[in-house]
Amino acid sequence: MSYSIPVTVAYGDGIGPEIMEATLRILEAAKAPLAYETIQIGEKVYQSGHSAGIRPEAWESLRRTKVFLKAPITTPQGGGFKSLNVTTRKMLGLYANVRPCISYAPFVATKHPTMDVVIIRENEEDLYAGIEHQQTPEVVQCLKLISRPGCEKIVRYAFNYARQYGRSKVTCFTKDNIMKQTDGLFHQVFDEIAKEYPEIEAEHWIVDIGAAKLADTPEAFDVIVMPNLYGDILSDVAAQIAGSVGLAGSSNIGEEVAMFEAIHGSAPRRAGQNLANPSGLLLGAIMMLVHLGEGEVASKVHNAWLKTLEDGIHTYDIYKESVSTERVGTKEFADAVIARMGQLPTQLKAVHYASVKAEPIKDKLSVRKPVTTETVGVDIFLYHEDRDAALLGEGLKQYTAGPLSLSMITNRGVKVWPDGFAETFCTDHWRCRFKAGDVNNVPYEEILQLQAKLTEAGYRIIKTENLCTFDGKPAFSAGQGA
Amino acid sequence: MSYSIPVTVAYGDGIGPEIMEATLRILEAAKAPLAYETIQIGEKVYQSGHSAGIRPEAWESLRRTKVFLKAPITTPQGGGFKSLNVTTRKMLGLYANVRPCISYAPFVATKHPTMDVVIIRENEEDLYAGIEHQQTPEVVQCLKLISRPGCEKIVRYAFNYARQYGRSKVTCFTKDNIMKQTDGLFHQVFDEIAKEYPEIEAEHWIVDIGAAKLADTPEAFDVIVMPNLYGDILSDVAAQIAGSVGLAGSSNIGEEVAMFEAIHGSAPRRAGQNLANPSGLLLGAIMMLVHLGEGEVASKVHNAWLKTLEDGIHTYDIYKESVSTERVGTKEFADAVIARMGQLPTQLKAVHYASVKAEPIKDKLSVRKPVTTETVGVDIFLYHEDRDAALLGEGLKQYTAGPLSLSMITNRGVKVWPDGFAETFCTDHWRCRFKAGDVNNVPYEEILQLQAKLTEAGYRIIKTENLCTFDGKPAFSAGQGA
Ligand SMILES: NC(=O)c1ccc[n+]([C@@H]2O[C@H](COP(=O)([O-])OP(=O)(O)OC[C@H]3O[C@@H](n4cnc5c(N)ncnc54)[C@H](OP(=O)(O)O)[C@@H]3O)[C@@H](O)[C@H]2O)c1
Ligand SMILES: NC(=O)c1ccc[n+]([C@@H]2O[C@H](COP(=O)([O-])OP(=O)(O)OC[C@H]3O[C@@H](n4cnc5c(N)ncnc54)[C@H](OP(=O)(O)O)[C@@H]3O)[C@@H](O)[C@H]2O)c1
Repeated sequence: MSYSIPVTVAYGDGIGPEIMEATLRILEAAKAPLAYETIQIGEKVYQSGHSAGIRPEAWESLRRTKVFLKAPITTPQGGGFKSLNVTTRKMLGLYANVRPCISYAPFVATKHPTMDVVIIRENEEDLYAGIEHQQTPEVVQCLKLISRPGCEKIVRYAFNYARQYGRSKVTCFTKDNIMKQTDGLFHQVFDEIAKEYPEIEAEHWIVDIGAAKLADTPEAFDVIVMPNLYGDILSDVAAQIAGSVGLAGSSNIGEEVAMFEAIHGSAPRRAGQNLANPSGLLLGAIMMLVHLGEGEVASKVHNAWLKTLEDGIHTYDIYKESVSTERVGTKEFADAVIARMGQLPTQLKAVHYASVKAEPIKDKLSVRKPVTTETVGVDIFLYHEDRDAALLGEGLKQYTAGPLSLSMITNRGVKVWPDGFAETFCTDHWRCRFKAGDVNNVPYEEILQLQAKLTEAGYRIIKTENLCTFDGKPAFSAGQGA
Repeated sequence: MSYSIPVTVAYGDGIGPEIMEATLRILEAAKAPLAYETIQIGEKVYQSGHSAGIRPEAWESLRRTKVFLKAPITTPQGGGFKSLNVTTRKMLGLYANVRPCISYAPFVATKHPTMDVVIIRENEEDLYAGIEHQQTPEVVQCLKLISRPGCEKIVRYAFNYARQYGRSKVTCFTKDNIMKQTDGLFHQVFDEIAKEYPEIEAEHWIVDIGAAKLADTPEAFDVIVMPNLYGDILSDVAAQIAGSVGLAGSSNIGEEVAMFEAIHGSAPRRAGQNLANPSGLLLGAIMMLVHLGEGEVASKVHNAWLKTLEDGIHTYDIYKESVSTERVGTKEFADAVIARMGQLPTQLKAVHYASVKAEPIKDKLSVRKPVTTETVGVDIFLYHEDRDAALLGEGLKQYTAGPLSLSMITNRGVKVWPDGFAETFCTDHWRCRFKAGDVNNVPYEEILQLQAKLTEAGYRIIKTENLCTFDGKPAFSAGQGA
């Protein structure tokens, strides 16, 4: 080849080095035109005092090559360490996590022989913003954040993916019957963007029933797009029921940078024994070749791999007497794939990737008209040990500032004042809502003044949330209860 | 019988009335000593202007009888309606949702013939506090709240349940590698309480891998206890893969009140046709009888039902030519169960419930030593349209109050100042952390003063979170990133 594309690789921990070596040998045999820059990440780097398991030089390589093939790493137990995966995804803006979950029956045992689902998981926001605060001795909190551009990017990615790979349906999972604003936004953006792809069927399921259907009848789905947490859980479910976790690769795609890996971890108890299945990382590498526009090489490698599966050359995790012909180690599996380079599978469906280099994504975000926001009140959260809601309400009622006065108190979201039930269980964490009767746009100074009065009276404020309207519509939830 | 126990029942919507009638006929045939008070809930009540689908008189009955047998209802679409289930659970403190997911192979088709899992879902807190606030034109937020007493109650319930029903293992699912404080608390309480039940095996799985294992190999689990959201999703998965959603009942248990129901909804498209399977509600009613100390009646009904399944008398949802002998409607199914009253199953395992009335639970909450909390800073969240993090940092740096000064800015949790990456995607929602160098216990007045300065300078504060230490330990997360 007359050119070579720079790619950053990391050999990782545990089984990482073995499966990376096997993968790179296969790529070499296929004459993939790649030039590798190796970086060190993971256990040793954590232990040398880098709290995210990666050194500045490594960032520098990633930001230069913009393509990362990553073997699994071992995350040290215990506090103070940041997840390298979360860090890499978010620092580099890798917002789309793509996980094809495909069964290879009858060559790999599965209860779902015709499954072919691609899960596209939002990769940056939701509860993974990692913003946690202990509120009181009893209550801890994590923020779930969902943004409109975040939703637009991932939903558009899912529809573009479906179009590119000739898939006919995109399903969205959310829990918007409960989380009407956060998951509601995701669902709403899904409906908006679906309209731009009329040739692709679009449907939405509540995540609980959707998950049940996915686990039971995965063949009902094609592409599924989800917020981060649901995607995390359900992509593991889908990969597992398709066959082996050793058989799935994934990509993490951003506007400029992309990362490719196996979905499994470093499997320490299998490390260094020439046992591990390198297929997950190999499939990740194939996704990388497609991303780089090397569709021909990608197809060659993928088809040789399918033929190897078909021929019954299996590592321990998928070996089964009835379908396997030979039980092999990591190295021998790679040799078998190399020996089949140029062959096509005869029973499994051969792949044919187009050779189109992925352009840097210039996300088309919807142009929003300027929004008028007004503040109409504030939720003030108190740490308060006495559990008598009526007493707390009577006490707080006397404090006002400008137009702000107490309208309700909730505990864990349930209204306990006015008119609470004795059966409602109360913690030491109280949300006290102060609203401004008819006045719109309370100056923040009034909110500060109210807090000053409460503080002076001895109440312990631990957090606040403004109550806002956007273009005149209230955008905060009511209390739960009767 | 010389006594009768008052019980509140609601016939619900859709298939509700039919399956309730069938259930009550079976209970009558078994001579269950119950006296019913009927209340109306659901669609009609919502439409008559009660935003939670229930009237004050109905609450009154529930709080008096303390036992509720509930048929499914139809929740109207669209805004302004509160979930009746969430409301009932939280107002009455029904903190434990118990869902046995059992397969009845070979009589009901399933890919998991030996499954027998009980999911115990925390039923009140987590993201279901329902506290949502739109923050900025781009960002919405939902609070995930987890409390120590909430964790203690549900975990202890799970271990007591295992002990009462002779089950040998309790598994806990959380995502505490990411949510170290919220899910971390749940996991920590699980470990603490497990020690009090040395005869019961205790184990913890990260929820993603745990869910994958559950969907693939449910026979690896016995009792599983989980925070609310995971329990919602995974109990649907478990019920579905066990067989039919028409076959699972559930209980919602509080200290004083308890509610029993089918896990499915009102299946409007099957309503009024004498088609629906009444088994889910019947199994809910059996759980109610056990709760009331009527173990003998409960066993009689449950065994007659098992015998009916075995004899191949099946409603449409589980009818299969190879195992069924007769396809029946709702009424005829009930008749068949009644005809078998007193019989035992011959292949499926017969049940034998003890006749021990459930005492009102006096939750034993751990006595906590007084905790010293100190405020060491504040996270101030700004709505700010300009996306230049460096500029924002330079601007904010000059504002201080007492010991408080700017230490970091994050966007969706990722540190963007100081030393951010250009690749990091930024929304219009910025978390600005102000910390108090070495000083402990910043008076809240200083926090207000800082906010006053920022407001005067034109910054738009939309929320705050205090940074606290508890017994000297910082209890807030660091920023993510390099
Ligand atoms: N992206 C990443 O870097 C990443 C992702 C997940 C986890 N991790 C880290 O990996 C470490 C181990 O985590 P874990 O044990 O929970 O999960 P894991 O590494 O995925 O391994 C779990 C089990 O899955 C099987 N397995 C995984 N990969 C395999 C392969 N290539 N071939 C054959 N079998 C394979 C093995 O099962 P048997 O032993 O039963 O054969 C292994 O013990 C942890 O430190 C975790 O934090 C890293
Ligand atoms: N606790 C509750 O009150 C509760 C719980 C969940 C949902 N809901 C409400 O119920 C309404 C309908 O929701 P949905 O259609 O999503 O779920 P659903 O009512 O559970 O019904 C979904 C499908 O499951 C099958 N099914 C459910 N119960 C069955 C039974 N007893 N016998 C036979 N088949 C049964 C039917 O499938 P086929 O039609 O394919 O035969 C039905 O169409 C909504 O208004 C929802 O809000 C209420």
